[in-house]
Amino acid sequence: MNNTGESVIFHPIGYIRSPHTDPKKTPIQPDYAKGCRGQAVVYPQYAEGLRDLDGFSHIYLLYHLHQAGPAKLIVKPFLQEVERGVFATRAPSRPNPIGLSVVELERIEGHVLYLDGLDMLDGTPLLDVKPYTSRFDRIATTRNGWQELVDEETARRKGRRGYGE
Amino acid sequence: MNNTGESVIFHPIGYIRSPHTDPKKTPIQPDYAKGCRGQAVVYPQYAEGLRDLDGFSHIYLLYHLHQAGPAKLIVKPFLQEVERGVFATRAPSRPNPIGLSVVELERIEGHVLYLDGLDMLDGTPLLDVKPYTSRFDRIATTRNGWQELVDEETARRKGRRGYGE
Repeated sequence: MNNTGESVIFHPIGYIRSPHTDPKKTPIQPDYAKGCRGQAVVYPQYAEGLRDLDGFSHIYLLYHLHQAGPAKLIVKPFLQEVERGVFATRAPSRPNPIGLSVVELERIEGHVLYLDGLDMLDGTPLLDVKPYTSRFDRIATTRNGWQELVDEETARRKGRRGYGE
Repeated sequence: MNNTGESVIFHPIGYIRSPHTDPKKTPIQPDYAKGCRGQAVVYPQYAEGLRDLDGFSHIYLLYHLHQAGPAKLIVKPFLQEVERGVFATRAPSRPNPIGLSVVELERIEGHVLYLDGLDMLDGTPLLDVKPYTSRFDRIATTRNGWQELVDEETARRKGRRGYGE
């Protein structure tokens, strides 16, 4: 089976309010965005789907990297001055610019999720929310690729991209 | 900022070959699909983007849940006979049917990824591939919601959905 050429159409279920308005100063991952609080505003027509989500301390946000620019297959990741295949990185300039972040869910009020660890731009269109569970998502990896070549202090400094300085 | 009404169009970067052809007998998560091997076939024009991915033992697959059927906001998750909001579950019938699985990457040959732990249907359109890293993705959760009410043996039995029996 080969699905070449088909297109898949999604409609945002809401949007994200974050403190980040400059792509160049937006932390690259939630781990480097501690204290970057904001909200995921889910459109009221989807609010019923949020039932029971408040039992989870962490959730996945899937969103449209709407300012990613044209796709590139070879990129320099934020953490390293070496060219890598885009699928071996979390860089935004992907063929399908879907962003994925695990963020901390502080509370839910109506159709608004209050979050910490936001690493996406203000106004980012939200596509999906899923619970992060230790049962399914906390994986013991054996190899972490080129990331193992970046020490934690360097990663943190580059990963925050000036935020909070 | 409010993005209501905009649509987001993606084009599959490939498709997944898996042993699963019956949605009712497809394991619900990679953890219950150990030994379910298959491939992610990336279209040749994107192959360059796979460079360096083989250094990672685990990867995220993002895909179109193309047989999910109409969206429901309230669902009974596979693991429990209790109705939950769809965003508090990983059920496929979501407003935007984007699937997310962490699978084991065994090797890459050209533009084909050889994988273990496949929990999606054969022919599933692939939207994105990202490295799973312990640095960013192995999170210490404090609360796992309704999932904490399901014991591991029950979860495993229901989660495999008859596969391998």
